[in-house]
Amino acid sequence: MVRGRVTGRLWSTKRINTLPQGALLNVELQDGSSIIALDPLGCGEGEEVLITQGSVAAGYFQDIKAPIDALIIGSIDDHN
Amino acid sequence: MVRGRVTGRLWSTKRINTLPQGALLNVELQDGSSIIALDPLGCGEGEEVLITQGSVAAGYFQDIKAPIDALIIGSIDDHN
Amino acid sequence: MVRGRVTGRLWSTKRINTLPQGALLNVELQDGSSIIALDPLGCGEGEEVLITQGSVAAGYFQDIKAPIDALIIGSIDDHN
Amino acid sequence: MVRGRVTGRLWSTKRINTLPQGALLNVELQDGSSIIALDPLGCGEGEEVLITQGSVAAGYFQDIKAPIDALIIGSIDDHN
Amino acid sequence: MVRGRVTGRLWSTKRINTLPQGALLNVELQDGSSIIALDPLGCGEGEEVLITQGSVAAGYFQDIKAPIDALIIGSIDDHN
Repeated sequence: MVRGRVTGRLWSTKRINTLPQGALLNVELQDGSSIIALDPLGCGEGEEVLITQGSVAAGYFQDIKAPIDALIIGSIDDHN
Repeated sequence: MVRGRVTGRLWSTKRINTLPQGALLNVELQDGSSIIALDPLGCGEGEEVLITQGSVAAGYFQDIKAPIDALIIGSIDDHN
Repeated sequence: MVRGRVTGRLWSTKRINTLPQGALLNVELQDGSSIIALDPLGCGEGEEVLITQGSVAAGYFQDIKAPIDALIIGSIDDHN
Repeated sequence: MVRGRVTGRLWSTKRINTLPQGALLNVELQDGSSIIALDPLGCGEGEEVLITQGSVAAGYFQDIKAPIDALIIGSIDDHN
Repeated sequence: MVRGRVTGRLWSTKRINTLPQGALLNVELQDGSSIIALDPLGCGEGEEVLITQGSVAAGYFQDIKAPIDALIIGSIDDHN
């Protein structure tokens, strides 16, 4: 997984119909690059999050074949 | 997912037969690199799009095992 | 697989419910970047470990669809 | 997908038995790096090709679990 | 696939039980980075090899869900 910080949100009206509901958040990773991750946890701007990538991100959605390759799986409390 | 801007289109006549119909768009990503993504939404040059990568891109196609590793899943309205 | 050294641990209370129990370790890879890997082996800080990435990391968990894309699969004894 | 140009071919006699027949072509990508892709289309040196990567590349082979992570899926006619 | 040269071997006694038997080889890739790949072919130091990555690497193992994301699939004879 990778760690990043939520920096914003984006909206897409023209989208494929298997894209799940949920916020699409812009997350800045530790190396300075950004990815867009689906957020099932209701995270806010500035929050530090844990992201999983690839097909396992889609596996979170049970009833649809979600075209999702990045998912926020936790909000980070603390680390040493 | 990653965000990018459509910069062109390419054509391939000599192709494997499981490659789905649909435009193959050249998309420039935020880091300056380019990828080719299949577009089921009819996006045009200059449009900002959201792309999913890996095996979940192929999962969008129900009846064939599509050899697709990048799919446009939405057109971006706006972001903050 | 990639090789890295455990540099710390992080905690996440607000998390999706399919995230398995187990330590989430921060591992510094040979190229200087860091990833977060789930640790089923009880590794400690400073230990050199072997990490597998992608959907095979999730396959280790039998009963749940774990949203894990990085797993510690061994502690490195020695190498030449 | 990524775009590249065929720069050569390689041979491997000592190989695992699930590696499909077919040319293993060296392809130089747009960023200057090279990958080896299986070619089911009979492409020649200098030809510009479209490559898919990851598990979907293996999905092209029906009867075997091919250990292939890069496949040429088309020859590029033209692009704008 | 990627091409690399075997530069050493590593051992791991404390390991998860689904990690297959077989040598874990350190392979230096053409870009100078290194990965650890499982070797079912008995390759030696200095040998030039072809490596497949991702979930297809694990698919080589029939009876277990092997947590392997890199597998040597051939030894390279020659290339032009």
